[in-house]
Amino acid sequence: MKKKYLLSPGPTPVPEAALLTMAYPMMHHRTPQFSAIFAEVKEDLKYLFQTKNDVLILASSGTGAMESAVVNIFSPGDHALVVNGGKFGERWGKICESYGLKTIWLNVEWGRAVKSEAIEDALNKDREIKGVFIQGNETSTAVSHPVREIAEIVRQRDNTLLIVDGITAVGVYDIPMDKWGIDVLITGSQKALMLPPGLSFISLNDKAWKFNETARLPRFYFDLKKERKNLKDNTTAYTPAASLIIGLREVLKIIKSEGLEKIFKKNERMARATRNAMTSLGLRLLAPEAPAECATGVYTPEGVDGGKLLKSLRDEFGVTLAGGQDQLKGKILRIAHMGYIDTFDIITAVASIEMALRKFGYKVELGRGVAAAQEVLLEGY
Amino acid sequence: MKKKYLLSPGPTPVPEAALLTMAYPMMHHRTPQFSAIFAEVKEDLKYLFQTKNDVLILASSGTGAMESAVVNIFSPGDHALVVNGGKFGERWGKICESYGLKTIWLNVEWGRAVKSEAIEDALNKDREIKGVFIQGNETSTAVSHPVREIAEIVRQRDNTLLIVDGITAVGVYDIPMDKWGIDVLITGSQKALMLPPGLSFISLNDKAWKFNETARLPRFYFDLKKERKNLKDNTTAYTPAASLIIGLREVLKIIKSEGLEKIFKKNERMARATRNAMTSLGLRLLAPEAPAECATGVYTPEGVDGGKLLKSLRDEFGVTLAGGQDQLKGKILRIAHMGYIDTFDIITAVASIEMALRKFGYKVELGRGVAAAQEVLLEGY
Repeated sequence: MKKKYLLSPGPTPVPEAALLTMAYPMMHHRTPQFSAIFAEVKEDLKYLFQTKNDVLILASSGTGAMESAVVNIFSPGDHALVVNGGKFGERWGKICESYGLKTIWLNVEWGRAVKSEAIEDALNKDREIKGVFIQGNETSTAVSHPVREIAEIVRQRDNTLLIVDGITAVGVYDIPMDKWGIDVLITGSQKALMLPPGLSFISLNDKAWKFNETARLPRFYFDLKKERKNLKDNTTAYTPAASLIIGLREVLKIIKSEGLEKIFKKNERMARATRNAMTSLGLRLLAPEAPAECATGVYTPEGVDGGKLLKSLRDEFGVTLAGGQDQLKGKILRIAHMGYIDTFDIITAVASIEMALRKFGYKVELGRGVAAAQEVLLEGY
Repeated sequence: MKKKYLLSPGPTPVPEAALLTMAYPMMHHRTPQFSAIFAEVKEDLKYLFQTKNDVLILASSGTGAMESAVVNIFSPGDHALVVNGGKFGERWGKICESYGLKTIWLNVEWGRAVKSEAIEDALNKDREIKGVFIQGNETSTAVSHPVREIAEIVRQRDNTLLIVDGITAVGVYDIPMDKWGIDVLITGSQKALMLPPGLSFISLNDKAWKFNETARLPRFYFDLKKERKNLKDNTTAYTPAASLIIGLREVLKIIKSEGLEKIFKKNERMARATRNAMTSLGLRLLAPEAPAECATGVYTPEGVDGGKLLKSLRDEFGVTLAGGQDQLKGKILRIAHMGYIDTFDIITAVASIEMALRKFGYKVELGRGVAAAQEVLLEGY
């Protein structure tokens, strides 16, 4: 009977209306009925990406869309600049290396954002760099990279593309693809889109499609040109994850009726409230300088085992947060504030952390973090 | 996208597992499959009621079971003693009067419990009283009546029955039918049973069934003797609310695996936490002397319109509490703590009340009530 509260930075909670539509009896995907749904989501995805470009839908997790960006745009030996400031930046590099790109690693301390000047320097040092790979938000460290500034640098260069993993950025904060000049933008279903995992999305602008014409890396399942052709006919090249796409229609309707601007404001407020709460409890933020709006990372205090704290929160208090990965394992908590997470979920996260810390012997004034969060959250009412 | 949090004293939230079982394709109720389910819930209801007697299942709201208690046990002109300390006590009296019972009203100030001595006095004054009608918890005022003491008085009299509306008592706190000698006990589906409204339950002991033999009030749909006969065959006299009964099997499984004792402790803790929170905010409890464990009633502060506060909580903050009825309308808030309501729902209720009060200009220290609740709730971890 213990109630569960989900506040992990993916998967995020799925709205009841979307859960219900996905429980509808299975619809065949080669029917006019399904094509009509597809036509709808195709348009609404452009709203979400803030683009006039096609947004392609893949039946894969976000990593599949990341791989598709590499294999559809580049050729063996191409130079790729990879910003590695966390688990997902590292993944960009691993994909590039797997496909024989010459990968230039721009390492950033975990918990910090890359400086746009460092990108410029790297591009100046190696004129052959054809792709800059980055995250909008590096989810593993809850850091936000300066995509807008980087886009300004990259768009000056005809021979270089900016490829952004926006898996925890698109729909989380204002990251307008066309306005900023992002060449390739990716997202996944289980973050701001509030769906189960299983769908990924990728959009290329004209500049990126140009690269596609000469790209020589092997590809089959993730053939974006083929997908673009199918998209025109309101279908996909291979069997689409139909129930997820039916759920997608529902969440996109919810997002459109709420409006991106309002959602961005809410996420910013919840992020600020969470940071306020954590610092008021004397906890140290993982990314104080460039905090992301998808999740807040916070160090567990000295003497408290982060892994055990997380386990107690999940199994005893029923509150699922995320921990750290690799070098941050056991050292941090991550609290999500995107998608179908609202004011009192943040209150729940903060109150549960206070209570669990007290249980672990850390001196904490109960209610203090909650009050700090409430002060900020009240701005929304 | 505003998230909804339900903390009303009925309906209470339905656990996900029960929601899912109730979404199964419709099953016909005159089948061995359904009878097997019925046989299961029949036994588990005895566990819930803490009785060896049959627990009958009616397709009606709780009021239907209340009416069935009157019409199956009494005859026109019978004397009935009704404890009227709120909306539901009053309902007992109205039912009795509708059926021509001579109704003796024992009025109690709203917010207070009846004294068992007052029952004894009334029974001594009128030796013809055949039924004492009371609530386990008077939900409208969040008061707990001393059922155990009253049962001790009534069981001494061969010609008098104790009929308890346990709609917000059964499964909420320890109210053992057989051990205390309650003659008739009733509950509904949408409280501690965590189901949608639509089912009610009634159990009679041997003494009450004796009364049934000579009861002359008219009845058809609510014919308990007929239901008892059907129960033996694992069915109901009329069409059962089949999907609710399928849900019932699920929640009874949940309740049994959790154990009544643990549930009672949890509810007591949540009730105490809520009272602690409210008084720490300077709010006045509606029933400080005999508070119920189903819900806490609290007066809204001077100068704050209770109706508007409730509406703001519901429509702006997304938190559904209950208000007052009749003379208490606009003056109180009621916060539920039974069924599928857990620690962080209580935190949500308290935090939202703090925030809404602040918005309404009431001087409130944010987080203070939450901290007072956390102190108590931590006992459970």
